[in-house]
Amino acid sequence: MNTLIRSGTVITAKETFRADVRIREGVITDIGASLEPDSGEEVLDAAGRYVMPGGVDVHTHLDMPFMGTVTSDDFETGTRAAAVGGTTTVVDFVIPSHGQPLVEALEAWHEKARGKAVVDYGFHMAIVEFNDQVAAGMADLVSRGVTSFKCFLAYKDALMVEDLEFLAALAAAREHGALVQVHAENGDMLAWLTERLRAEGHLEARYHAAAHPAIAEEEASGRAIALARVAGQPLYIVHLSCGGALDQIRLARALGQPVYCETCPQYLVLDDALYRVGGFEAARWVMSPPLREAGDKEELWAGLEDGSIQCVATDHCSFNFEGQKDMGREDFTKIPNGAPGVGDRMNVLWTAGVMAGRISPNKFVEVTATNPARLFGMAPQKGSITVGADGDVVVFDPNRRGTVSVKTSKHRCDYSTFEGFALEGMAETVLSRGEIIARDGDYVGRQGRGEYIMRAPFSPVGG
Amino acid sequence: MNTLIRSGTVITAKETFRADVRIREGVITDIGASLEPDSGEEVLDAAGRYVMPGGVDVHTHLDMPFMGTVTSDDFETGTRAAAVGGTTTVVDFVIPSHGQPLVEALEAWHEKARGKAVVDYGFHMAIVEFNDQVAAGMADLVSRGVTSFKCFLAYKDALMVEDLEFLAALAAAREHGALVQVHAENGDMLAWLTERLRAEGHLEARYHAAAHPAIAEEEASGRAIALARVAGQPLYIVHLSCGGALDQIRLARALGQPVYCETCPQYLVLDDALYRVGGFEAARWVMSPPLREAGDKEELWAGLEDGSIQCVATDHCSFNFEGQKDMGREDFTKIPNGAPGVGDRMNVLWTAGVMAGRISPNKFVEVTATNPARLFGMAPQKGSITVGADGDVVVFDPNRRGTVSVKTSKHRCDYSTFEGFALEGMAETVLSRGEIIARDGDYVGRQGRGEYIMRAPFSPVGG
Amino acid sequence: MNTLIRSGTVITAKETFRADVRIREGVITDIGASLEPDSGEEVLDAAGRYVMPGGVDVHTHLDMPFMGTVTSDDFETGTRAAAVGGTTTVVDFVIPSHGQPLVEALEAWHEKARGKAVVDYGFHMAIVEFNDQVAAGMADLVSRGVTSFKCFLAYKDALMVEDLEFLAALAAAREHGALVQVHAENGDMLAWLTERLRAEGHLEARYHAAAHPAIAEEEASGRAIALARVAGQPLYIVHLSCGGALDQIRLARALGQPVYCETCPQYLVLDDALYRVGGFEAARWVMSPPLREAGDKEELWAGLEDGSIQCVATDHCSFNFEGQKDMGREDFTKIPNGAPGVGDRMNVLWTAGVMAGRISPNKFVEVTATNPARLFGMAPQKGSITVGADGDVVVFDPNRRGTVSVKTSKHRCDYSTFEGFALEGMAETVLSRGEIIARDGDYVGRQGRGEYIMRAPFSPVGG
Amino acid sequence: MNTLIRSGTVITAKETFRADVRIREGVITDIGASLEPDSGEEVLDAAGRYVMPGGVDVHTHLDMPFMGTVTSDDFETGTRAAAVGGTTTVVDFVIPSHGQPLVEALEAWHEKARGKAVVDYGFHMAIVEFNDQVAAGMADLVSRGVTSFKCFLAYKDALMVEDLEFLAALAAAREHGALVQVHAENGDMLAWLTERLRAEGHLEARYHAAAHPAIAEEEASGRAIALARVAGQPLYIVHLSCGGALDQIRLARALGQPVYCETCPQYLVLDDALYRVGGFEAARWVMSPPLREAGDKEELWAGLEDGSIQCVATDHCSFNFEGQKDMGREDFTKIPNGAPGVGDRMNVLWTAGVMAGRISPNKFVEVTATNPARLFGMAPQKGSITVGADGDVVVFDPNRRGTVSVKTSKHRCDYSTFEGFALEGMAETVLSRGEIIARDGDYVGRQGRGEYIMRAPFSPVGG
Repeated sequence: MNTLIRSGTVITAKETFRADVRIREGVITDIGASLEPDSGEEVLDAAGRYVMPGGVDVHTHLDMPFMGTVTSDDFETGTRAAAVGGTTTVVDFVIPSHGQPLVEALEAWHEKARGKAVVDYGFHMAIVEFNDQVAAGMADLVSRGVTSFKCFLAYKDALMVEDLEFLAALAAAREHGALVQVHAENGDMLAWLTERLRAEGHLEARYHAAAHPAIAEEEASGRAIALARVAGQPLYIVHLSCGGALDQIRLARALGQPVYCETCPQYLVLDDALYRVGGFEAARWVMSPPLREAGDKEELWAGLEDGSIQCVATDHCSFNFEGQKDMGREDFTKIPNGAPGVGDRMNVLWTAGVMAGRISPNKFVEVTATNPARLFGMAPQKGSITVGADGDVVVFDPNRRGTVSVKTSKHRCDYSTFEGFALEGMAETVLSRGEIIARDGDYVGRQGRGEYIMRAPFSPVGG
Repeated sequence: MNTLIRSGTVITAKETFRADVRIREGVITDIGASLEPDSGEEVLDAAGRYVMPGGVDVHTHLDMPFMGTVTSDDFETGTRAAAVGGTTTVVDFVIPSHGQPLVEALEAWHEKARGKAVVDYGFHMAIVEFNDQVAAGMADLVSRGVTSFKCFLAYKDALMVEDLEFLAALAAAREHGALVQVHAENGDMLAWLTERLRAEGHLEARYHAAAHPAIAEEEASGRAIALARVAGQPLYIVHLSCGGALDQIRLARALGQPVYCETCPQYLVLDDALYRVGGFEAARWVMSPPLREAGDKEELWAGLEDGSIQCVATDHCSFNFEGQKDMGREDFTKIPNGAPGVGDRMNVLWTAGVMAGRISPNKFVEVTATNPARLFGMAPQKGSITVGADGDVVVFDPNRRGTVSVKTSKHRCDYSTFEGFALEGMAETVLSRGEIIARDGDYVGRQGRGEYIMRAPFSPVGG
Repeated sequence: MNTLIRSGTVITAKETFRADVRIREGVITDIGASLEPDSGEEVLDAAGRYVMPGGVDVHTHLDMPFMGTVTSDDFETGTRAAAVGGTTTVVDFVIPSHGQPLVEALEAWHEKARGKAVVDYGFHMAIVEFNDQVAAGMADLVSRGVTSFKCFLAYKDALMVEDLEFLAALAAAREHGALVQVHAENGDMLAWLTERLRAEGHLEARYHAAAHPAIAEEEASGRAIALARVAGQPLYIVHLSCGGALDQIRLARALGQPVYCETCPQYLVLDDALYRVGGFEAARWVMSPPLREAGDKEELWAGLEDGSIQCVATDHCSFNFEGQKDMGREDFTKIPNGAPGVGDRMNVLWTAGVMAGRISPNKFVEVTATNPARLFGMAPQKGSITVGADGDVVVFDPNRRGTVSVKTSKHRCDYSTFEGFALEGMAETVLSRGEIIARDGDYVGRQGRGEYIMRAPFSPVGG
Repeated sequence: MNTLIRSGTVITAKETFRADVRIREGVITDIGASLEPDSGEEVLDAAGRYVMPGGVDVHTHLDMPFMGTVTSDDFETGTRAAAVGGTTTVVDFVIPSHGQPLVEALEAWHEKARGKAVVDYGFHMAIVEFNDQVAAGMADLVSRGVTSFKCFLAYKDALMVEDLEFLAALAAAREHGALVQVHAENGDMLAWLTERLRAEGHLEARYHAAAHPAIAEEEASGRAIALARVAGQPLYIVHLSCGGALDQIRLARALGQPVYCETCPQYLVLDDALYRVGGFEAARWVMSPPLREAGDKEELWAGLEDGSIQCVATDHCSFNFEGQKDMGREDFTKIPNGAPGVGDRMNVLWTAGVMAGRISPNKFVEVTATNPARLFGMAPQKGSITVGADGDVVVFDPNRRGTVSVKTSKHRCDYSTFEGFALEGMAETVLSRGEIIARDGDYVGRQGRGEYIMRAPFSPVGG
C-alpha cells in the first residue's frame, strides 16, 4: 500500500515545514512541496495537523513475570495501546532467570511477541549476573539485534549486580558495541530502609516512597557514572526521576563523558502528593523509583530543555489494582512495582510540555522519537520523517481535546496512571510502515503485524 | 535555475540519509529517494559526498571602522571567502556612533553590503548606550528585520554599557521580541589590568592576554546571566572562550533559564601557547577575548557535545598584519583586535570536530547552520535541508585534503589565523538559493548577488 | 581594679574548661585551676556560669546621618545596649561625604564617640569614591588604626563605586595592609527594579524586598570576589543574607582565595514571612539586604558550622518607627534602611544557635568574638580569654530566661527587631578591661569610659 | 614532677600569646603572664620558642599483621619516633579477624601496647563484617573507651564491607555515641582495574597507582556520605588524598551534614611524579590511596585553610624496603601497602604549611592536635594548652634547621617517606603529662610510660 500524506506541517527534531510525504512499500520515498498522488495511492489529508515521526518507546515491560505475578498487558494489548497513542515502536526488556542462557530468554520473549505485537519491536536484555556464559551470550545477542543491556543496582538479592559485575558488563558491552543501561537506585539502601520501616510497623503503601528516597537514586547514578568512566564506556540511565541524579549526569557530561538518560511522563507531571492522599490508593503509583517532590518535576523539564535528558520513555509496567496491586495491601513490599503508560506518553507529554510552553514541538519529536531511535540503533529507519525512513508517522491534531481515563484507555489495566489528565492535542491517525493502524483512538490495523527490529550496534551521537 | 543534487548523503542536524534534493526557483521543493531530472534542470552529482545546509555565520565584522582603522574585508571579499568556505549566510554587526539614530546606522551598513555581498546577509545592531531614542530605534529595527541587539560589557569608555543600560536594553528587547547578545568581559577589570601592565612597562603584544584574563569573562558572563534573569529575558553570549564562563551558562540552563551561546573555531583549536612564541607575531591573535589555555579547548568541545554551546560562529574581524596590526607594535592596546576566519570555519571545524571524533556530522550541521538560523529568526529558510527552505547547500567532500594558508585564503588579509592547519574534508560545491556560487575553492557566482534577510522575532527553541 | 573570676567554665573558640581568671589593671594575667584572691581583688563567683570573651560587633552604624535622618542610637545609647547584651567592642563605620578628606571624616566620628562610648571601639572607613586624595587618606588612616575599608556596590548615585574604583581601593588596601569590606548588592539591578516597581505603583513597604532580590546579592558577591582575585587581595563581605551568595564564597574558598564574611542574627532567625503580614509594619525590617526566604536561614547556619561564615555582626542601624521609618509610609524607597540589634546579638544567637543544637558554645565564641577580633586586627587583646588579653569578659548564665522586647531593650529605638523572641541563656555580668560594666541587664559602669582601639594591619588567618 | 615552662609564646588553635605554663602532677594548672617557680619545680626556658599542644596522630598502624607480614614499627619504636617528632598521643587501629570477637581483638592490641608505648594511646576498631555479635561488641567497646569504628569500602574479599553492613554499622554507632570512619575507595573498581592490569602484564610497582585512581576514592567518598545521610549519622573519612573526594565532602557540609576528614602529610607534599621515576623505587610510596597529581596537593591545602579538612594524621604503616616491600618486586599487588610518617608529621607540616605561608601557626595546632582530640573524644585533656589539660606540650624551635632522613629517623624502617625534605623549624623539647620525654631529637623518657586513653563518646563539634 502506498500512501500520500498531504498538506500537513511536518515536525522533525529540528525543523518545522509544510510538506507532503509519500510512503511506498512501507518506506518514505518523497518529501515535497506539492506531490501529486500516483494511481492507487491512498491520500491522507493532514491539513491543519502535524505530521510527526511515530513515537519510539524504549522502556516497556509487556507480559513480564515479576513479584509473583505477570504484567497485565501482553504484546497484543500493550502495542495496540501504544499504536492508538501514537507510538509505533517499542523496545521491551527481556529478563532472564539466574543461570538461564541469554539467548534462551530472548527466544522466550520472541515467543511472547511474535504474532501478537502490532507495532515494530526490539528487545533489551537484562544482565542479572556476570560470568563467562553471560559474556558469550552478550556477543551472541548483539548479532541477533539486541544491542543494549540493562543492569540493576537495585532489587538486592534478586536482579541486583555488584559493582564488579557491572564493570564486567560494561567492558563486554564495549567489546561488542552495545550500550549499557542502568536502573540506578542503591539496593542496599533500599533494603536497609525497608527493614527499618518494617521494624517500625510502617508497611502501608505510602511507605514505598520512604523506602526509595531520592538520595538512593542520586548515589547510584553517581556510582554508575564513575564505573562507566573507569570502564571507558557510554552509559544510559533509565527512568531518571529526581534533580539530584540529574545533577550527576550534568556533571559527567560537562566533563565530556558520554552519559545519556531517559525520564518518564509520570515523573514530569505527577508528584509525591499522590502518596499523601492516604490509604491503599497510593498503590497505583508504587513504582521504582517512586514519584518525587514537586520541585523535581521542574528540574526534569529543565533537563529536557537543556539537553541533559535525551529521551522520554514510559517504563510501562501495568498491574491491575484489583488482583495484583492488592497483593500488597498489608505490606508495601508485596505491591507489584509499576504502572501503565505506553498509550499515554505522546498525548500527555504534548500537553504538559508543548502546550504548557516548556518544550518546543521539535523537542517533543526529538525526545519521543528521534533520540531514542538513534541511541538504540534504530535510526534512521525509526524516529524520523526522512527519505528512506520507515513510514512510521503520527498525524497529530493539535485541536483535539480529551481526557486520559481508564474508561477510554486501551491498556489492559483497571486504572489509569494519569486519570483525569486533560489533553490539549491528540494523535489522530497513526501509520506504521505506511499502513494506517490507528484512527481517532481506535486500532484499525491487522492483528500481530509488528516486526522484530534488528538493532545496530551503539555509536555515539552528537548529544 | 533549477537544480537537482543527486546521489549524495544528506546530513541534517539530526539525521543522515541517502536522498536526492531538488531546488526550484531558489527553494528546495523535493527530497526523494530517486528523483528524475526535469528538463532544463541542472544535475549535480553528489555521489560520495555529503549534502549539508550552507553554513550560517552569525558573527562577522565586515567593513567596520574600529580602533582607528577599518576591517580589511568588506562585504565583497568577506562574503566571497565565506561562500568558498561553505558559508551561505552571514549576520554582521552594525555599530552605531554615540548619538547616532539606529536606523541611520543600519542604513549605512545596508550601503556597505548592497551590491557587494554575494551571500545572503542579515544585521545585528549594537547598543552602545540606552535612552528613549535608542528604545524607539529598537522597535523600528525589529520591523526592519533586525531582531537581535548586542551589548558590550567590555571596551570601557567606548562601547561599554553599564548594567542599568543593559537591563533597559533587555527589557526593550523583550517588548519587541528581540534577542539580546552580550560581549561578556568586565571592562573595568580590563581597564585596570591594562593600566597596571602599562605602569609595569609590559606593552608587548603578548600582554594583551594578561589584560584579558578568563576571570573577566567568567565574571561578566555570570553577571549578564543574572541581569537577564532579573529582566526575565533570554540571553545569547557571543564568542565564549573559556571553561569558567561555560560553567556559568550550564548553571543557568540547569535552572531552566534560556541562555544561549556561541564559540568560535579559534577557541576550539588554538591556545595561548601562541602568545608565548614571542615578539610581535602574537599580534595575529590579538582578539577579545584572547586565546585561552589548552584545557579550555577541551571544555568547549564538551560544551558543544552536551548542548551547552549551540553555535559556532567566527567573529571574523580581519586586519592586515602589515599596516594595521602593526599600529600597536609598541603598545598592545593599539593593536586592532580581531582575526580573519569566515572562510575557514566549516572546513576547520569538520576536521577538528568530526574527523577527530569529537562531534558527529549531525552536530556539525546543527552548530554551524541549523541552530544559528533558528536562534536568529532565519529558520527554516536558512540552515536546513528541508522542503521549503532556501536552496543553500554545501556539497562537502570528505576525501578532499588541503591546508589552510594565506596563500589560498580568499580573505583580504595578509595572514591566516589557522596557517598550516591540515584539512581532512572540504567544501566542494556551494549553492545559494539554488545557484552554484563556489566550486573547488573558487567563487563562481555573480557579483553582489546576496540579499538582505528580514529576520523574524526571537522565539525560544527547544535547546 | 583587679578582679578574680572564680569557679566558672571558660569557653574559648576551641576549648571548654573549668578555671579561674585573674584580671589585673585591665589585662588577664592568670588562668588557673585554683587561684587565690590577692588582697584588694574583687572576687566574682561564676560557678554554674560560662566565662566567655566579651562580644566583638564589627558592624554598627551609630549616630550616622542617612537618608535624610540620623540613626537613633548614638555612641552612648548604642554602646550601653551593647554592654548590657554582652558586647564589649564595637567597630563603627565612618561614612565620608564625597570630596571630604578621609581623615576629616574620621575626626568627626571620633568626636561622636569620645566621652560617650562606654565600650572600646574602632572605626572602619567607607570608600565612596576613589582618587589620589582618597589613596593618600587610606595610607594615613592605617597609621591611625583604621585598617579596614568598605566599598558599596549598592546605593547607586550615592555611595556606590564602580568596579574600577573598587579595584583601585583593593590595590591601595593591599599596599597598606588593610582589609576591604564590601556591601554586595548590584546597585544597578536595585535601581532598575525600584523604577519598575514605582512604574507599577508598588510602593508599599513590602516591595522593598522585591527591589532587593537575592540574585542581586549573589551577583555582586561573585563579582566582588572576582575583582578581589584580580587584585590579589583578601576580601570581607558584610551582612551576607542568602544561600546563593554563600555559594559564591564557598567556591572561592575552595580555590584557596582568602574570602571572609559575616552574617547577622536577623538573617539567621527571621525571614521574609514578616513582609507578608501586610501594611506598614513591614517597615521595621526594611534593611539592605532584606530578610530572605526561610530556606536561606538553614543555609546560613550550615555556613557557620562549616566555617564558610566566620563572623556574626549586627549591622545595627536603628531608626524609630514613628518619626523616622514612617518617612516612607507612601514610598518604600524613603524608609530609612536598617534595624536595631547590637544589644540582642549575643543572647539571640546563643538561644537560636547553641540551645537549638546548631552550633557549639565554642563556635558561638568563635563567631561572636574571636574571629571578628582576629580579622580586624584586634587580637589577642580582644575576643579571647587568654593571658595578655584585655579583661573583656561576659559571665553568661545558661539558666536565665527572658524575652527580647522593646520594653526592656536599651536601644534608643521605639521597636525591637526581635520582639517576643524567648531567650534561653543571657549575659549576666559583663566586664570591660576588668571593670564590671553591666549586671543583670543594667549598665553599671562609668560614663564614656570606652577607649579607641588602634587596630593592627590585616594579616591572613587560618580559616 | 612539676614543671614551669617560661617565656615562650603559646600557640593554640585560635590564639597566640606570651605566657608561662605550669604543669603539676601531669596537668596544666596555671597559665600566667609571669609565674614564679615553686620549689622543686623544674623550669624550662622557652624564650624564642613556641609552646604548642603535643601532636595527636589519630591514624597509625603499629605492630599490625597485614598482607602476609607485620608493620615494622611496634608500639615501642613507633611511639618513640612519635615523641621525638612532637606527637604525644596516637590512636591506633585494631583489626579483628573475621569472626573474632571485637573485645578479644582489643585485648590483643592492648597486649601489643602495654609496657611498650611511651606516649598515651587510644584505639579505633575496624568493622570488617556486621552481625549481632559485632553489634554487641561495639556497645561493649564504647564502654571500654573505643568510641570510633572504621569500615573499609576497599580491600574486596578481605576487609571490605558491603553497603548494607556499612549502614548497619552506622546505625549501631549512632546508638552508642560512636563515630564511624571510612576508608573510601571502591573495592570493586580496584579489583577490576587490578585484574585488567594483570591481564595486560602491568605488574610493576608504579601500576599500583593506576589500580587506585582518584575516581575510586571520589566515588566511595560520595557513597559513604550518602549512606551516612540515610543513617542520620556523622562520618569521618580517613586519609583523604584528592580534590574530587574533597568536593564531595564540601558539598555535604554545605548542606549541613556532619562530615569530617583527615589528610596526611604525604598527600600534601608528595605527588605521583615519584611513581614515574621508574623501577621498584616506587614501592616506597605504594600505599592506599596512592600519591595523587600535583594539583591535588593545592586542593588539599585549600581544604585545610577553608576548614573542609579538620585533621592531619599520618596513616603511619611502615614496612622495610628490603624484606617487606620487596615481596612485591614482581607483582605490585604483593607490595605491603603503607609508609612511615608518625615521627615526621609535625616538622614536615610546619615547614610545608606554616613556613610556606599556606596555613597559620594556629591552624597548624588545630589540625595536628586540637581537632583530632575533640573529634575522637580526648578533649580537653589532649590537644590543648589549657588549664586542666594534660601537660602534653611541644616546645618548638622555629629557627632550628634539619633534613628528614632515614639516617636520623627514629622509625624502625629502612627508608624515609620524606627523605631529603629540608625542615625549617623543629620540635625541641617534648613533654607528656609534664614529663620531658624528648629533647633535641632524642627520646629521654622512661620505657613504656604511655597510658591507655579512655575516649569519650562522639559529640558534634563546631566545625
